[in-house]
Amino acid sequence: MSSDARGVRHRVRRHPERGHYDVDSIDAILDEALVCHLGVVIRGEPWVLPTIHARVGDQVYVHGAVAAASLKAMASPAVCCLTVTLVDGLVLARSAFNHSLNYRSVVVRGFGTLVSDPVEKLMALKALVEHVAPGRWEDARPPSPLELRATQMVRLPLAGAIAKMRTGPVKDDVEDLGWPHWAGVLPLQVTAGAVEPDSQMANPTAPTPEYLANYVRARR
Amino acid sequence: MSSDARGVRHRVRRHPERGHYDVDSIDAILDEALVCHLGVVIRGEPWVLPTIHARVGDQVYVHGAVAAASLKAMASPAVCCLTVTLVDGLVLARSAFNHSLNYRSVVVRGFGTLVSDPVEKLMALKALVEHVAPGRWEDARPPSPLELRATQMVRLPLAGAIAKMRTGPVKDDVEDLGWPHWAGVLPLQVTAGAVEPDSQMANPTAPTPEYLANYVRARR
Repeated sequence: MSSDARGVRHRVRRHPERGHYDVDSIDAILDEALVCHLGVVIRGEPWVLPTIHARVGDQVYVHGAVAAASLKAMASPAVCCLTVTLVDGLVLARSAFNHSLNYRSVVVRGFGTLVSDPVEKLMALKALVEHVAPGRWEDARPPSPLELRATQMVRLPLAGAIAKMRTGPVKDDVEDLGWPHWAGVLPLQVTAGAVEPDSQMANPTAPTPEYLANYVRARR
Repeated sequence: MSSDARGVRHRVRRHPERGHYDVDSIDAILDEALVCHLGVVIRGEPWVLPTIHARVGDQVYVHGAVAAASLKAMASPAVCCLTVTLVDGLVLARSAFNHSLNYRSVVVRGFGTLVSDPVEKLMALKALVEHVAPGRWEDARPPSPLELRATQMVRLPLAGAIAKMRTGPVKDDVEDLGWPHWAGVLPLQVTAGAVEPDSQMANPTAPTPEYLANYVRARR
């Protein structure tokens, strides 16, 4: 365990060599992942819902409508679980059994807190927009007081977050190396297509913002 | 609700126009998504873990090590939740409030069942490999009896699965249309890079399999 870990509550049991507990690994994965999957328990049953997140220091924020049951459950005095996963490639071994994926994931478990301070809420909304497209906040109309009130924001501390990742080549059993099949890794990534400008732009010749022209998901 | 729905237990409440309940929509999303996020409750607390899935007809299968606690919980007499999400694009509105993502997601909730029949287990393992790379099963050494015994397989019925998706352009409030900022959609997709053949291939000149040369995630 790296000395700069935030404090670890649990460890990776399957493939312990894939576990990472340092702040840099965890933050990089959270920042690169566009969406997370939020898990809460409602009336004893699990719900897993995708949503946008944004990390600010040692906290991660998610938002939604005021009525959203998943956020209410997240901010209740019960543990929730926020997971992000980046798929980096297919690992095609000689044996079906040793097929795998290269991936990087982070699991955050803890207690969510409803954000009631409007200053923190606005800061977190900015972080959410900047998480999606860094630079966009300055190009958008800021939230109105009504919109702020219609937004529920929940903060989850990153204490105890853990990362798990698989990287590198195929790992076949030695006795399988003689099989004639092609084996190797197919890298995968998220790429952006051509922008689709809105048909009603007030300034139809507005240039494509720089933060979209070369959009890549990578650590901020 | 389409007449060919499998039977709906719950409906999309936020943005009900985004809810889809027909088999074709649900199956297409499950098949295109490379990984799912599995949510289970263990000792009252939620865990959300990424894993590969494969749909076979009206069932979805996930697998793991025999000791995997998440799969044991999935196969226990308690509801679990399996969610997949495809992110199709950034929706950059004039107002921060109307920023969104284009996405397609499926939420499956129900009771998992441990697969004990070795014939069904082998069929599901083949489906998992083919889910990742259709055509790959024929190019891999089949599982040995020992490997089969070391694998835990759980089946989850798709009855009650629901899809939620956002597609199309920016939706700004009419009073925001005069803002001068660029607005529009940035499409995103998963793309494959150049294959990385294993350095120890028995036949180093084995050609890249066709199913990798033009790899795209799309419905099978």
